[in-house]
Amino acid sequence: MWLRTSCEMSFDITVPTPFILMLRLRSGVQQWVAREEYRLRPTVPVFEFTDNYGNLCQRLIAPPGPFSVYTSADVMTADEVDQTPGAPFIDIQYLPDSVLSYLLPSRYCESDRFGQMATEITAGQLLGYDQVKAIETWLHTTIHYEPYSSDIPVSAVEVNLRQSGVCRDLSHLGIALCRSLSIPARLVVGYHYGLEPMDLHAWFEAYIAGRWYTFDATQTELIGGYVVIGYGRDAADVAIYNQFGPPVYPITQEIKVQLIEEKNA
Amino acid sequence: MWLRTSCEMSFDITVPTPFILMLRLRSGVQQWVAREEYRLRPTVPVFEFTDNYGNLCQRLIAPPGPFSVYTSADVMTADEVDQTPGAPFIDIQYLPDSVLSYLLPSRYCESDRFGQMATEITAGQLLGYDQVKAIETWLHTTIHYEPYSSDIPVSAVEVNLRQSGVCRDLSHLGIALCRSLSIPARLVVGYHYGLEPMDLHAWFEAYIAGRWYTFDATQTELIGGYVVIGYGRDAADVAIYNQFGPPVYPITQEIKVQLIEEKNA
Amino acid sequence: MWLRTSCEMSFDITVPTPFILMLRLRSGVQQWVAREEYRLRPTVPVFEFTDNYGNLCQRLIAPPGPFSVYTSADVMTADEVDQTPGAPFIDIQYLPDSVLSYLLPSRYCESDRFGQMATEITAGQLLGYDQVKAIETWLHTTIHYEPYSSDIPVSAVEVNLRQSGVCRDLSHLGIALCRSLSIPARLVVGYHYGLEPMDLHAWFEAYIAGRWYTFDATQTELIGGYVVIGYGRDAADVAIYNQFGPPVYPITQEIKVQLIEEKNA
Amino acid sequence: MWLRTSCEMSFDITVPTPFILMLRLRSGVQQWVAREEYRLRPTVPVFEFTDNYGNLCQRLIAPPGPFSVYTSADVMTADEVDQTPGAPFIDIQYLPDSVLSYLLPSRYCESDRFGQMATEITAGQLLGYDQVKAIETWLHTTIHYEPYSSDIPVSAVEVNLRQSGVCRDLSHLGIALCRSLSIPARLVVGYHYGLEPMDLHAWFEAYIAGRWYTFDATQTELIGGYVVIGYGRDAADVAIYNQFGPPVYPITQEIKVQLIEEKNA
Repeated sequence: MWLRTSCEMSFDITVPTPFILMLRLRSGVQQWVAREEYRLRPTVPVFEFTDNYGNLCQRLIAPPGPFSVYTSADVMTADEVDQTPGAPFIDIQYLPDSVLSYLLPSRYCESDRFGQMATEITAGQLLGYDQVKAIETWLHTTIHYEPYSSDIPVSAVEVNLRQSGVCRDLSHLGIALCRSLSIPARLVVGYHYGLEPMDLHAWFEAYIAGRWYTFDATQTELIGGYVVIGYGRDAADVAIYNQFGPPVYPITQEIKVQLIEEKNA
Repeated sequence: MWLRTSCEMSFDITVPTPFILMLRLRSGVQQWVAREEYRLRPTVPVFEFTDNYGNLCQRLIAPPGPFSVYTSADVMTADEVDQTPGAPFIDIQYLPDSVLSYLLPSRYCESDRFGQMATEITAGQLLGYDQVKAIETWLHTTIHYEPYSSDIPVSAVEVNLRQSGVCRDLSHLGIALCRSLSIPARLVVGYHYGLEPMDLHAWFEAYIAGRWYTFDATQTELIGGYVVIGYGRDAADVAIYNQFGPPVYPITQEIKVQLIEEKNA
Repeated sequence: MWLRTSCEMSFDITVPTPFILMLRLRSGVQQWVAREEYRLRPTVPVFEFTDNYGNLCQRLIAPPGPFSVYTSADVMTADEVDQTPGAPFIDIQYLPDSVLSYLLPSRYCESDRFGQMATEITAGQLLGYDQVKAIETWLHTTIHYEPYSSDIPVSAVEVNLRQSGVCRDLSHLGIALCRSLSIPARLVVGYHYGLEPMDLHAWFEAYIAGRWYTFDATQTELIGGYVVIGYGRDAADVAIYNQFGPPVYPITQEIKVQLIEEKNA
Repeated sequence: MWLRTSCEMSFDITVPTPFILMLRLRSGVQQWVAREEYRLRPTVPVFEFTDNYGNLCQRLIAPPGPFSVYTSADVMTADEVDQTPGAPFIDIQYLPDSVLSYLLPSRYCESDRFGQMATEITAGQLLGYDQVKAIETWLHTTIHYEPYSSDIPVSAVEVNLRQSGVCRDLSHLGIALCRSLSIPARLVVGYHYGLEPMDLHAWFEAYIAGRWYTFDATQTELIGGYVVIGYGRDAADVAIYNQFGPPVYPITQEIKVQLIEEKNA
């Protein structure tokens, strides 16, 4: 399907403030970006670089006064999410080097603390896809999904204590559980068509049987329409913005995802 | 200045033909891409990857029949080209690792064959910027610039024999001469505002005194308005398209570069 | 000075156990490896790769029974540690892209939680080197250094609660404090000549005034003789070994660092 | 088999001369380096870096006077070379991104000039492994292998004109022929046990059916005992040493490859 995404954030800046933004879409296997717009008001010099995970990042200094960022894109993404019950677990020794770092604990995914719990949640499942599906289902039915409840990322351990969280929090716990079973897992940040309420979204992917699969504990059913901004080990790697100096929060933030007609028809 | 660039190419395909295109603009220090469009007719699946030089490349299979590619962008680029007469040569041992590969001979820049000639052309110059400026001037006054004269890249040795060439050819010879003096040099492919006749363009950069400087042997004077698509060692690395199987040539190709008003004003 | 380092670890393996070892020395600016040995008993196939931080890692499956790993190297390293009181802080916007990831919170360095505390510890210091020196001194005088007290990495928050830890723990807290002041910091794992008691060692580096500086909160005085095995954001990135499946611990581990005569004399 | 390799080169230096050496062995899937030694006389500071192809390179300035480099290693490598007649050609669109650059022409492999010739040499062969085997056989029977005949790399076009060359020259022509058939090919530099006369060696690999296969046009039969120093597109990427300034040649060069007993037995 063809989607038109947009994100508009406005800030009220008091002192010159360095930002690292991550607001372009990933181009790659999963999606094709046919149009993209990136507008800053006021215009300031921007330096772009690619981070360790292949995400495009934009560095700039926001000047004092009102400052806004607007991005928009037309993107083709899959109508359906691939699901392969029974897809087998891969022994560590056969994993490609490039996914090994997604097995290790990270800032918000203390996978070294969840071995016992993950074993219980996935008891009786075939090793691989079915384990992760069981984790996703367990999250969906156990951890209360509360959009807007938190601005500050919390770690899997804390999410498990609170038994509730935003999409990012549920994903962190899902990732920690997967890694504790030696299944590589990563956080994805982006958009999802039809998300209620509409907002930026986070979900997770697990590496099974030689490829990454999508999982989302916030949704009753996995349906298509995911648009990827960035991948990383957890929210510390894929913040939509990192800002330095005295804290600044968006005073407005508006996210839209619309279905558009077949763009090139 | 804000420029609007576009490139439209159409092909008549007889058998399914794999392409690797390089038609997105580089985002980075030198320029800021505020809007970008990339349209294929008919629409086909595209897989995007980043090559060894950081250029974004698009892989696809063009199906039989008419096939067209259209890209367009709004980009802010420098009004003027930085020039620093006297900027000093850097001894090999102080060059950063990342530029060392631009010292070596490459497919179209046989720098191992030009030591004597480069020494003569730059006789009496301060080592560094002034040497490269002398090479650029020598190319401009000696090698006849003939737009459209050739579709097939030829190497520096051949350009020197013919004493004429397209922008890419003059750049290859310039690069080979720089490298033979132990000055790292690379080919740049992109657009240039005001180019006569308008076309895709190629020029070269040399690494002097800790940064890359722009040189262009096809122009009487270095003025701003350069827009970068890709960097590489020579044309073998930065082809706008590589195509495999029976040769296919564009039946139409239209390039435009317009000045637009301050985009965010 | 020329040092001869060695590390011997032996395990008693019950089921085939995948390992990722990180036991080669870094070759690079800081040190030169003139001889290296890496012996496994029994011999098993090893696959080597370079991780995201440039560390060389070795993958293998340890077979059931006794399994030992022995590495040894002759390495030249600096006699003294560079120290530059007054070296200035670099504003975020002037940091190279490659160090930005060392500003972010990581698994064991929750730098997002230490802003206030870091400000207090460094009150009155010049921004930059002097701040980090104050942090190192504060750690040395406040957090009790207890070699061998822990095998399991704990995070900066926990180290601060316990007020004691091994070298790795003190480093984690030091790194978290630096990052909270927008100073990039990383963990280093390796050897230190003269360490008492001798063991593998961990310390940290901070990026100030355009380069990395060494700090070590476990030592009264910074003296030379550091040998680097690996760099990373924290212990999750630079484990000497990661092992998967039922936990396995070394039954013996012997570390040696000897001064050898000028090797090439 | 376990091999002990060594390389000793001595120079007589007149002015301080920057070198980039490539004399460590690759560690990786194909071979395991259990011991390595790297000795310079006199000792000078060395800076090591990894090039774009993953080869370890050493930068140094040789001081005036006698200067020698000695490297030695104990390495386990395969007893036999994998050969898979019938292994199929992979269409461009299914090649991994990372091998695409080995399809393009490079300094010494003008693959854009050999399409017709490669088609003739491989007429009647199954696409894939059998084509490359036919190229290797054609080289072996057609191009006269003359060890020591040349110090200066020449390109595939020139090798084809001369109809003779050193191991590197035959490899360049083999690579150019492969690439002209859309088969990725790369140069390998290293040692070969049993080579007559003993010297550093060069051969080539082609990417077929999802992996790299070894080919060597200088040998009547492909037997094991290959030890890899570096990979690259051609000799411009994998020179054992690049030297800058007035040319310097080794006054002695001694290469040894001995069979040693099972090292860890």
